[in-house]
Amino acid sequence: MSRFMHPRYAPLDAYVPGEQPRDKKYIKLNTNESPYPPPPAVCQAVTRQAIDDLRLYPDPDALPLKKALAELYGVEAENVFLTNGSDDILNFAFMAFGEKGVAFADITYGFYKVIASLNCLPAQVIPLKEDFSLDYTDYLGLNKLIAIANPNAPTGMPIPLWQVEEILKSNPDSVVLIDEAYVDFGGDSAVELTKKYENLLVVMTFSKSRSMAGARLGFAIGSAEIIADLEKLKYSTNPYNIDRLTQICGLAAVENNDYFIDCCRKIQTTRERTAAALKGLGFTVLPSKTNFLFVSCPGKTGEQLYTGLRQRGILVRYFSGERTGNFIRVTIGSDSEMDAFLAAIKDILN
Amino acid sequence: MSRFMHPRYAPLDAYVPGEQPRDKKYIKLNTNESPYPPPPAVCQAVTRQAIDDLRLYPDPDALPLKKALAELYGVEAENVFLTNGSDDILNFAFMAFGEKGVAFADITYGFYKVIASLNCLPAQVIPLKEDFSLDYTDYLGLNKLIAIANPNAPTGMPIPLWQVEEILKSNPDSVVLIDEAYVDFGGDSAVELTKKYENLLVVMTFSKSRSMAGARLGFAIGSAEIIADLEKLKYSTNPYNIDRLTQICGLAAVENNDYFIDCCRKIQTTRERTAAALKGLGFTVLPSKTNFLFVSCPGKTGEQLYTGLRQRGILVRYFSGERTGNFIRVTIGSDSEMDAFLAAIKDILN
Repeated sequence: MSRFMHPRYAPLDAYVPGEQPRDKKYIKLNTNESPYPPPPAVCQAVTRQAIDDLRLYPDPDALPLKKALAELYGVEAENVFLTNGSDDILNFAFMAFGEKGVAFADITYGFYKVIASLNCLPAQVIPLKEDFSLDYTDYLGLNKLIAIANPNAPTGMPIPLWQVEEILKSNPDSVVLIDEAYVDFGGDSAVELTKKYENLLVVMTFSKSRSMAGARLGFAIGSAEIIADLEKLKYSTNPYNIDRLTQICGLAAVENNDYFIDCCRKIQTTRERTAAALKGLGFTVLPSKTNFLFVSCPGKTGEQLYTGLRQRGILVRYFSGERTGNFIRVTIGSDSEMDAFLAAIKDILN
Repeated sequence: MSRFMHPRYAPLDAYVPGEQPRDKKYIKLNTNESPYPPPPAVCQAVTRQAIDDLRLYPDPDALPLKKALAELYGVEAENVFLTNGSDDILNFAFMAFGEKGVAFADITYGFYKVIASLNCLPAQVIPLKEDFSLDYTDYLGLNKLIAIANPNAPTGMPIPLWQVEEILKSNPDSVVLIDEAYVDFGGDSAVELTKKYENLLVVMTFSKSRSMAGARLGFAIGSAEIIADLEKLKYSTNPYNIDRLTQICGLAAVENNDYFIDCCRKIQTTRERTAAALKGLGFTVLPSKTNFLFVSCPGKTGEQLYTGLRQRGILVRYFSGERTGNFIRVTIGSDSEMDAFLAAIKDILN
């Protein structure tokens, strides 16, 4: 830290993104990207005119995209908040609604801890149960901002909607943020509950099921009141934060929703096949409703598996820590990528 | 504000972007966009492969773009900070370096006031002189974060580099932010001074001289230490905030720098012609080194001029307030756009 920096940021550990090595070509199963490209319509939408129009500012409201998402999810445009990736939404929500502190699981998306620290919010870290499931009763009556990834990362495990609803009911004076980054791979979305609970904010992204991690587009659905709060913060930090090409690509993506439903089905099929194969090799495989598997192998640490795979040209992610140290998180790639992964695992085990 | 929102944001007035009306086709001279599209190389860089690769996260460091900018400006990659538009940099800088408060002019980019409020920083607002020039002696020894747009907006007027240097020397323990959004239209950049003063942060953008307001790309140049501070904040809020297509377009733009130098020359020529014509019509025209003119007409308020122009299909911007109420800010468009503007002005005056 320079001597000019505000001392409040001294304890801040910035988020460390998954590695993007440049030394050789890897099979990337480490950052939960889709193995499938966006549909051809996205490419066709990026015309010469769209590039020439880069000279003009984007629509700060991204209204056509907002309306298309509202229609897709059965809400109004005023219930939709759009940003440059969903991390941005998480940060705005922590800024806006974290005054009384924030609660999240000990094993979940690592960014919650970072943005709690960034915003100097007291964080209540609630351990998952021994089997990595989340006990919803831990979140009843907390009276602070609650952030739950559903399904959770890196475990892949969901909680049922009735538990989300119990949490919402018992925290009527604080916002409950349900991070549904991975919901399209078999989870149940809480979007319908936003019509009933004004304290619910559902956060989604184009990065996973919509094959557009590179376009940076996240969105949230909630009551008009809390969406307006988030808009106020966005307009006070970076009003034009979704660029023209991302708006164009995002709209084409929403208009081709069936393509992505098909991709998600393929990924789920590949996931179940991969999970069965790993179990056959003696692995522990947590029940995943996401596009990744959280798995461990008796006698190997996560780091050992990671290193063995990396040597064989395959990137996965491991997490240090007492409870997660024996696991790796493996993104579900294409069928051929997962065949290569399973072959490498067999090679490591022999 | 919803009942969930942190009360610290109650006094916050979000920034109001220039209007983007959709009711009919206007000649847009209201948001300081370039009349010229990006060069063909930018379009050629957005290939089918680039769209397919949207499934992958962008490089959070945007290293090729950072290196290209470093080379162009004669600094190292560690001296360059990239974000989603330069507003983002301003906010990060206020967060990072505003602990002792922040000082800026009464008439300058409106966003400084918003982000001071957002970050709850005490703001010292320093009046420009009667002729709208900035008295650099007002900024000596302030010992707080200083933000100066050079050239200034909406006046278009620059201060010379030796005055910037005096401000830097007399505030060795606080950061001096020189916002050079408009510097390429005839101002003098302070980039060279970053090698001598570790407290200098120069902020630039692709939105004006580089015809890419729609791509959202801003950058800052400064000492490695203060750039590292800004990176820490970026990695703690939104690590992947520059998307793949923007990185690709930005790199192609830097590689075609001569194209933009030519555009800037054309805009300066058009500016001087327009300024002379307005003076001929009895207007007061502030001496501009930017891609806009700040002008007033005896007997008309800024709002009257704005309204008259809008009725004639031309958008400009006016600012309420005692000192600026008689002025309009007119972006320099193409020659034919400025001919249409001048014809409309003559029509209003008759």
